[in-house]
Amino acid sequence: MRRAFLFGIFVLEVTFLFTEGVQILQDDAHHYRTKRSISPSRRTEIRNMSPNDRPSCPPGQTVPPTRVNTTVRLADLRREMTNSGIHAYIIPSEDAHQSEYPSDYDLRREFISGLSGSYGLAVVTSTQAALWTDGRYFLQAENELDCNWILMKMGETDVPSSTEWLISVLAGITNPKVGAYPFLINSGSWLSYEKALSKENIFMTGTNEDLVGKIWTTGRPQEPDSPINALPLKFAGRSWQDKLADMHKAMTEKEVDAMIVTGLDETAWLLNLRGDDIAYNPFFLSYIIVEKKTNTTTLYIRNATSKLTQNPTDTETTQKLHEHLNTREDGNCTGRTGACVKVMEYQQNVVKNQVQSVAGNSEMVLVSFSCNYALFSSIPEQKRLRENTPVALAKAKKNEMERNGMRASHKRDAEALITFMAELERKVKQNVEMTEVSAALDLKKYRMEKLYNRGLSFPSISAVGSNGAIIHYKPSNLTDRRITTDEMYLLDSGGQYLDGTTDVTRTFHFGTPTDYQKECYTRVLMGHVDLAMMKFLAGLYGREIDAIARRPLWEVGLQYRHGTGHGIGMFLSVHEGPGRISLSHAPFDSDSPLDDGQFFSDEPGYYEDGQFGIRLENIVMVKEEVDLKYKFPNTTFLGFETVTLVPYEPNLIKYELLSQAQMDWINKYHEKVIENIGTTEFQNRNPEAYRWLESRTRKITRTVNFSAVMSPSVLLIIVAIISQIL
Amino acid sequence: MRRAFLFGIFVLEVTFLFTEGVQILQDDAHHYRTKRSISPSRRTEIRNMSPNDRPSCPPGQTVPPTRVNTTVRLADLRREMTNSGIHAYIIPSEDAHQSEYPSDYDLRREFISGLSGSYGLAVVTSTQAALWTDGRYFLQAENELDCNWILMKMGETDVPSSTEWLISVLAGITNPKVGAYPFLINSGSWLSYEKALSKENIFMTGTNEDLVGKIWTTGRPQEPDSPINALPLKFAGRSWQDKLADMHKAMTEKEVDAMIVTGLDETAWLLNLRGDDIAYNPFFLSYIIVEKKTNTTTLYIRNATSKLTQNPTDTETTQKLHEHLNTREDGNCTGRTGACVKVMEYQQNVVKNQVQSVAGNSEMVLVSFSCNYALFSSIPEQKRLRENTPVALAKAKKNEMERNGMRASHKRDAEALITFMAELERKVKQNVEMTEVSAALDLKKYRMEKLYNRGLSFPSISAVGSNGAIIHYKPSNLTDRRITTDEMYLLDSGGQYLDGTTDVTRTFHFGTPTDYQKECYTRVLMGHVDLAMMKFLAGLYGREIDAIARRPLWEVGLQYRHGTGHGIGMFLSVHEGPGRISLSHAPFDSDSPLDDGQFFSDEPGYYEDGQFGIRLENIVMVKEEVDLKYKFPNTTFLGFETVTLVPYEPNLIKYELLSQAQMDWINKYHEKVIENIGTTEFQNRNPEAYRWLESRTRKITRTVNFSAVMSPSVLLIIVAIISQIL
Repeated sequence: MRRAFLFGIFVLEVTFLFTEGVQILQDDAHHYRTKRSISPSRRTEIRNMSPNDRPSCPPGQTVPPTRVNTTVRLADLRREMTNSGIHAYIIPSEDAHQSEYPSDYDLRREFISGLSGSYGLAVVTSTQAALWTDGRYFLQAENELDCNWILMKMGETDVPSSTEWLISVLAGITNPKVGAYPFLINSGSWLSYEKALSKENIFMTGTNEDLVGKIWTTGRPQEPDSPINALPLKFAGRSWQDKLADMHKAMTEKEVDAMIVTGLDETAWLLNLRGDDIAYNPFFLSYIIVEKKTNTTTLYIRNATSKLTQNPTDTETTQKLHEHLNTREDGNCTGRTGACVKVMEYQQNVVKNQVQSVAGNSEMVLVSFSCNYALFSSIPEQKRLRENTPVALAKAKKNEMERNGMRASHKRDAEALITFMAELERKVKQNVEMTEVSAALDLKKYRMEKLYNRGLSFPSISAVGSNGAIIHYKPSNLTDRRITTDEMYLLDSGGQYLDGTTDVTRTFHFGTPTDYQKECYTRVLMGHVDLAMMKFLAGLYGREIDAIARRPLWEVGLQYRHGTGHGIGMFLSVHEGPGRISLSHAPFDSDSPLDDGQFFSDEPGYYEDGQFGIRLENIVMVKEEVDLKYKFPNTTFLGFETVTLVPYEPNLIKYELLSQAQMDWINKYHEKVIENIGTTEFQNRNPEAYRWLESRTRKITRTVNFSAVMSPSVLLIIVAIISQIL
Repeated sequence: MRRAFLFGIFVLEVTFLFTEGVQILQDDAHHYRTKRSISPSRRTEIRNMSPNDRPSCPPGQTVPPTRVNTTVRLADLRREMTNSGIHAYIIPSEDAHQSEYPSDYDLRREFISGLSGSYGLAVVTSTQAALWTDGRYFLQAENELDCNWILMKMGETDVPSSTEWLISVLAGITNPKVGAYPFLINSGSWLSYEKALSKENIFMTGTNEDLVGKIWTTGRPQEPDSPINALPLKFAGRSWQDKLADMHKAMTEKEVDAMIVTGLDETAWLLNLRGDDIAYNPFFLSYIIVEKKTNTTTLYIRNATSKLTQNPTDTETTQKLHEHLNTREDGNCTGRTGACVKVMEYQQNVVKNQVQSVAGNSEMVLVSFSCNYALFSSIPEQKRLRENTPVALAKAKKNEMERNGMRASHKRDAEALITFMAELERKVKQNVEMTEVSAALDLKKYRMEKLYNRGLSFPSISAVGSNGAIIHYKPSNLTDRRITTDEMYLLDSGGQYLDGTTDVTRTFHFGTPTDYQKECYTRVLMGHVDLAMMKFLAGLYGREIDAIARRPLWEVGLQYRHGTGHGIGMFLSVHEGPGRISLSHAPFDSDSPLDDGQFFSDEPGYYEDGQFGIRLENIVMVKEEVDLKYKFPNTTFLGFETVTLVPYEPNLIKYELLSQAQMDWINKYHEKVIENIGTTEFQNRNPEAYRWLESRTRKITRTVNFSAVMSPSVLLIIVAIISQIL
């Protein structure tokens, strides 16, 4: 699956830790390091930007029916702003945990602006309102934002950053204050804003309340409150007790006394718990505070008391939450023998106070880059260490059982996908109506039937023809298109399983592709295979090998504007940091080197606007290479093991472009696929799918091009030899 | 040529801007951002390190004759330290301009410690003295340092950084102060030291005098004072007047009022001047201050008055310095029409005072990363902008005339090298005695005869057999070895020409190499060619394509521990920043993206300790690719043009390992070499060299491996076809 990114002058990719809104702020920060100020004329220009700059806003234009009326909401918000004494208010897309997918309850930016896209940043002053979004949402924003809103099209020339806009529009106000609810803003963003704005004597002010939450009195979705189930050891591979011991060790090494765990994938992983608060992610709203000196670990969850004693809702879970965590029924640890995790009620201010008090008893407290500013600022400056947490690093490097689970779940996932694909191809060729939406639904059904499946890992990207060129396309009834033999079909999907998270993309053509389409597919495949075959020095970052996957496209002047690979969790998030394989220029300390046992996607692509999209994605595991031909002293080499088991589209491969090594790799891969998937049981249960699989995994041999391969003299020798034989 | 680098746990390469000593400090800074402090037991361990830890220091060991007695020098220095009220003194290898090659006058660290190697950092306290150096100099340091010195072998386990050592050994002193002469320390290093030490209540103190200079009263070499010649426009390609106008424009864009130019390659380039103060580099000790508001540019040089009116010493230079700069004979600009560069006397404190005064009249002053701390700290914190200067960026992107000069000088340089190589091979095969040293001298002679030659661009690396595995080897009478048909021979050399700087490496075997040696050579060649063929997105950094050159070695478990490419100047430094092609993890803002008209080396290698070394190096120019097969919208692609014109060693190539594309590239390259070098004139003047060149540039055709290329069915078809013919 493609993770979000920004279109810009250059390939600018968003990291996981710094979600999109934050990346912009980071850019701002950089901007202010090299530029001193915005010129007076530019300030005037920015100040004069208006909703009327939008094509659909000047009087007389037709109002799209999808537009949301925000007049009352904005008036309500501005009243609250006045009461709080602030002149501008920032509303980001993120929740308190900087989640990639916030729950519906947390869609504040959508509520205030009307824009339903996943990415946007809203800033409201007493007279103006502006929304920043990227190329994916320009059209949608035009349709959904009413004419209270200035649309800031990020990446386009002359579009100011939010900081530049704030500086320009707040000019003339005495003691200007920019407010935000500090639980919703990443600490890095806050510091960047603060740095840039303070130079202009504008000050960041945390509001005591979430002002949008306060005015969102009707129609707001329920705060998520799903059951929490323990993940059995046969899936997790390591008990939370052992993981906590590992964390204590890492904390000793880092010389920190306490650690605040704020990422929802981190809290879920550390205590071997899973929930369902967030769509596509088995997470639950929570924080964990680990205190080393007192050996106290505290978990904060919603409705703690009732959840502690509920019966498990997952069939594989046998223990109640309080049993799993070895607490009393009320979440206390008094009188327990063995490790115990104290459980308390999830309330932002309670957690904040606790962080403050923990910091008081500590010399150094560790938080992640994505920690929200409210908690971050509760720790005195000289006591806070902000970096990738040992939880994130340990989570990324899967243990033996997790590795086996990833392999096993990918196998089951491939069975589902292959069965679906065989049926789809038959139907399309028999002219049975199949559309993007119906195909995605069918595939979901196949996945859900598989052992240990717990839903999808993200909304399927099922895209026909030109829809495939929209990198973050999500089919809907408005855009749905029929799958035919005339166009390419791109399918990017994945499942959640108790023993793994999957993410796989294949691109098809069920009719006759053009030569150009075949060349593009083949070059994407070449890059995908080159990366999968790559051997490299231990210690490298993904960004240092990313070009390997791009080279076959670059060679002929083509490219794709997204990263090549993201990390992936084990029954956690489909996008997992801190490592990645991309050309992102994020600071090294927010990245992490590739290491044995980490899983990444390998997904180059090619997109031709208005025409078609191609992407090929496997999940690969980084593994130590011990059998290379030579052994350089004191050097560890790494390589990849591909765990996805789904064949490619022979119809779209131009074999003459492949090197022998690429061809060998594909043949060996297809052998592995049919060996693993085409079992007797599979053959008996899915004869149609098996036949399809067999035809797709047939060995490739190169069509020899005589003139290219043989010089005349070689040909003469052959003739001579054959004459002898004859 | 290989630039300096550090051996460490990982490929850690030193940038140009941050010279080696500084890189260590940067690492320290990073260390202190993630680590809070050094444990008490570790401090004791560090404090107890002693010269007696060195194998040759305990009583009874033989004293190497090369050892320098530093007892008196250290006593002198310690007296000065006491007078200045400081407890430790830092002596770096660099001069005030952070030059890669300081002049002999500036070898303070060598004087105080005895170590003559190019890299080392000395720190002296009232009772101890410690020297940090890297793997290249461990043996030499053991032989040259007397037993006053603790040897800190960087990269080895448990060796503390200089900061860690200072923190440990200064414990217990009240108000400990660490001193250094601030003109010799890069601003980045100083800030890092300050940050790390202040946490331990240790304070950095700039001394008013250079304490080592003060005690170095006898035997100190003269301060360099070579003539300065104007570089004619036909070589420079752009007048200094136009360059200054470009700089004013860049300064307006950056909103800075003044710029302090401190790098000696920057001052030389900006005013189209060359000198001879620094070995292998046509530089002269100087600073330039550019003030935009008053349109004043001031050049600081030694013995200004006499140099202004001296006759040019270079045959190609026609103007005296004051004519070139349009000043009066005393360096003043009064009454001049047209642009004029004021010339003043080079004195550290005069320049410092001027920087202070300029900063007073400015809102923002630009300095480079490598600006020394004395000048840097003369600018108030809120007024200084520290980044790559527009001078460095413009200098790296050569203009049309510079590009042509680089091509032309590389052609002449190749003629010299090829003539030499042909003769060398004949002599070695005829058993005429040729050694590393004599070969280097012969080659120098050939180079010096060439039009516009102005010496060598660095000391030649001429290395036989196991000496080739020492990456920074420099032949001397002590290590000299004969070149025979039994061993490989590595030759890395380059020349300075008025129209270009060259740097080329070739590796030879004049007898019968082993299969393994051939495989290693071929894999180095494959990476070298893959990089030369590479097409990539504009905006990429060299670090993002470096892996392309390493892949063929990595594939079989081999590697090289240095960067793949460094920038190179036009009759300037053979190592030029800020761009580079390496896996260095330096911050992005000290690097710069690859851009049309920049020149880099392409020099992968392979080194087998005690056995042999292989390196292949060409200079390549980054150029825009306009003729790629397809054209992705709004996207610029870059590629490389190879300007070095020297054939490879056919004797060492295993053709069956090469891809068709690599073979085609080599054939095309050899065609270009013989076309350019093998002119009728060359044939007539050097018939032997021409025959040699012809044999080395012969077209390669692949030996077809039947079983690999042809499947049985294809073979059957061939048989069928041939049967028909017969």
